[in-house]
Amino acid sequence: MTDSTPPIVSLLTDYGRDDEFVGVCHGVILGIAREARIVDLSHEVPRHDVRRGAIVLRNALPYVAADVHVAIVDPQVGSERRALAVRCEDGTLLVGPDNGVLSLAWDRCGGVDLAVDVTRSPYRLEPVSATFHGRDLFAPVAAHLAAGAEIAEAGEPVDPATLDRIALPHPLFEDDGTIVAHVVTIDAYGNVALDLTHEQLAGTGLMLGVTAEVEVDSSQGGAAVKLGGGRLAAPFVHTFADVGPHEAILYEDASRAVAIAINRGDAAAELGLRPDDEVRLRPR
Amino acid sequence: MTDSTPPIVSLLTDYGRDDEFVGVCHGVILGIAREARIVDLSHEVPRHDVRRGAIVLRNALPYVAADVHVAIVDPQVGSERRALAVRCEDGTLLVGPDNGVLSLAWDRCGGVDLAVDVTRSPYRLEPVSATFHGRDLFAPVAAHLAAGAEIAEAGEPVDPATLDRIALPHPLFEDDGTIVAHVVTIDAYGNVALDLTHEQLAGTGLMLGVTAEVEVDSSQGGAAVKLGGGRLAAPFVHTFADVGPHEAILYEDASRAVAIAINRGDAAAELGLRPDDEVRLRPR
Amino acid sequence: MTDSTPPIVSLLTDYGRDDEFVGVCHGVILGIAREARIVDLSHEVPRHDVRRGAIVLRNALPYVAADVHVAIVDPQVGSERRALAVRCEDGTLLVGPDNGVLSLAWDRCGGVDLAVDVTRSPYRLEPVSATFHGRDLFAPVAAHLAAGAEIAEAGEPVDPATLDRIALPHPLFEDDGTIVAHVVTIDAYGNVALDLTHEQLAGTGLMLGVTAEVEVDSSQGGAAVKLGGGRLAAPFVHTFADVGPHEAILYEDASRAVAIAINRGDAAAELGLRPDDEVRLRPR
Repeated sequence: MTDSTPPIVSLLTDYGRDDEFVGVCHGVILGIAREARIVDLSHEVPRHDVRRGAIVLRNALPYVAADVHVAIVDPQVGSERRALAVRCEDGTLLVGPDNGVLSLAWDRCGGVDLAVDVTRSPYRLEPVSATFHGRDLFAPVAAHLAAGAEIAEAGEPVDPATLDRIALPHPLFEDDGTIVAHVVTIDAYGNVALDLTHEQLAGTGLMLGVTAEVEVDSSQGGAAVKLGGGRLAAPFVHTFADVGPHEAILYEDASRAVAIAINRGDAAAELGLRPDDEVRLRPR
Repeated sequence: MTDSTPPIVSLLTDYGRDDEFVGVCHGVILGIAREARIVDLSHEVPRHDVRRGAIVLRNALPYVAADVHVAIVDPQVGSERRALAVRCEDGTLLVGPDNGVLSLAWDRCGGVDLAVDVTRSPYRLEPVSATFHGRDLFAPVAAHLAAGAEIAEAGEPVDPATLDRIALPHPLFEDDGTIVAHVVTIDAYGNVALDLTHEQLAGTGLMLGVTAEVEVDSSQGGAAVKLGGGRLAAPFVHTFADVGPHEAILYEDASRAVAIAINRGDAAAELGLRPDDEVRLRPR
Repeated sequence: MTDSTPPIVSLLTDYGRDDEFVGVCHGVILGIAREARIVDLSHEVPRHDVRRGAIVLRNALPYVAADVHVAIVDPQVGSERRALAVRCEDGTLLVGPDNGVLSLAWDRCGGVDLAVDVTRSPYRLEPVSATFHGRDLFAPVAAHLAAGAEIAEAGEPVDPATLDRIALPHPLFEDDGTIVAHVVTIDAYGNVALDLTHEQLAGTGLMLGVTAEVEVDSSQGGAAVKLGGGRLAAPFVHTFADVGPHEAILYEDASRAVAIAINRGDAAAELGLRPDDEVRLRPR
């Protein structure tokens, strides 16, 4: 960034909004980098759900031109886990615990160029509490980086090969044409994103305009799913408005994943789907 | 605005805060107009409640001096409904779907001076997703307008006469002195705003200091309402503190509507009131 | 502040986020002080809980370098209670109702240097509504102060000795070594902060590494507490990660209070604790 443009810091946590934790992090950041703009990506990541935090950050990255992204989903806060600042190959700066929450983001930014452990950063607020590293460690480190500090000054070098990473499921393409996909995320409306992109459907016969047979574990879902033995038909359409209320669809969601939804309904609840569950798809 | 003052963009949606959708819209806006200030009017408009969104925006307008107001309550996203940028007669800029969510705002700003369909705006983010026009269409168009782009450059001209509008109920004044009002909005505390202003009470005998007989549909409300056959007495007072706990009042609310509340209670729940319900009032 | 740095205004309310009240206050502030940065400390203070609001503000103060702090928890809005702007001895400016919500903050900032009643402030928005002083009184007064107005111009002088104050409980140290503490706040995770600091434990035998016997009123808590007659053992540890899941701990929380938590559990719910409840502690 140049001197004339205010830095942007994005902030993603599982703190929720019921307490003042997010507000205090804002206060710390602005106290150090008063010109900064802060983008609250989300503070409602399910508590301690590191993978969900990593996915939210990865999906938001192309749209949020922050100078520094902070992600705090940190079940091991206060333990010996490392605290990181990372510079990606494309220059993006990431700050958060070393538990994988940053790893999908650096994958999308060309990989890790430089990583430092900021546990004893000169930018930390002393005394560092055992339970609120967002305030005492991550926010001040991010603010100093946003204000122009060099990442090499923020902590001790760490070998990128030793950093913790998130593993995501991958779809399987069986010989009989069945696609075995897995649930990756479920949004607040119950829409279910799979580990499958539109591009991966090439050659499967499943495409816009085709109706898929969708098979889920019938022991978990609602009445309709149990009655159908876990099978339902879902047309692959452009958007919700292409079907009637309460009809199931496949569609490409805004993060470009193939997803299952029920128009004006909650697909996750009605189909009994949770993260990592298997979903079997085939063109009808 | 001049070069020396940062532009203000207001943002109103039904996205909620559980997902990262609002944060991503902020990121898009700041990526285009880095100096902008963003005011989150509300993101908790009940899902798909276009009328409620329109009313919230209208009521907030006199207090929020934004250069551009964005309102996204958009049940038809991805369908053929138009996407709008509107310049009002007083210069206010509005951005959102063509479903009426902007219409009460332009009424308050002197009417429509110029409207364009931004569906294929040069400012959109390609590829435009089918489900997240906030990110791909409305946020970037608003940001470019905030940064000084001409609205005429943002899309194709639309005849203002063809724009969708919201209809609101109107109170009736019966010959026997009864005022037949209707529920317009209910806030998070259960306070019930009617389609009635203090000015419209002139000549009705109902005024500050007078007790009103309030009649509601007794089949919906709580025990007290059923027992009273749907009738209760409510003094027209200045504020909650003028009565004891759990007493019903009429008052002029902060948006200058005549409203019904129960001090430290939830009037909507206790009286069984929902939007558009009829409420009959007369001075006692 | 100097001309080159934007002012910071912090905002704490019990408005919640379901309505547009917070957004409207932002709009009012930015309309007057367009360069201002606003820090939302919290808007989820339990409704009308003045003491909780006062504590949240006090705890946040050292971390939020705001030029003006606004705190609105105001059950008497619209009544005769005074509305205040206060300059503390250290120069911090506070704005809010005269009900004690600001009092713990000015105690932490060296006491009151100057207080004015802003009920008829020249900076208020006319007409002042009876129910939304955040919009009509507190936000505009705070914005003018942030923009450089003199506090003496904002209202009528008030004798600091007449200001309302919050009383907090104090721990008792009994002769037999028992510490009688009280619940002060409970956060969204159910962690219970007591009216006890780590420093006050000197000489009690209770310290990091020692296990405490904790005694609570057994009639309120869950099964385990009832079975134990209200007594449980809790080691005084550094952080949650020092014990297994569902184990109780004592620890120093991020606001430096001695607190009770259950690792990955909800201590307040499981132990049946509410604000002001007595908790008896002794080293085992």
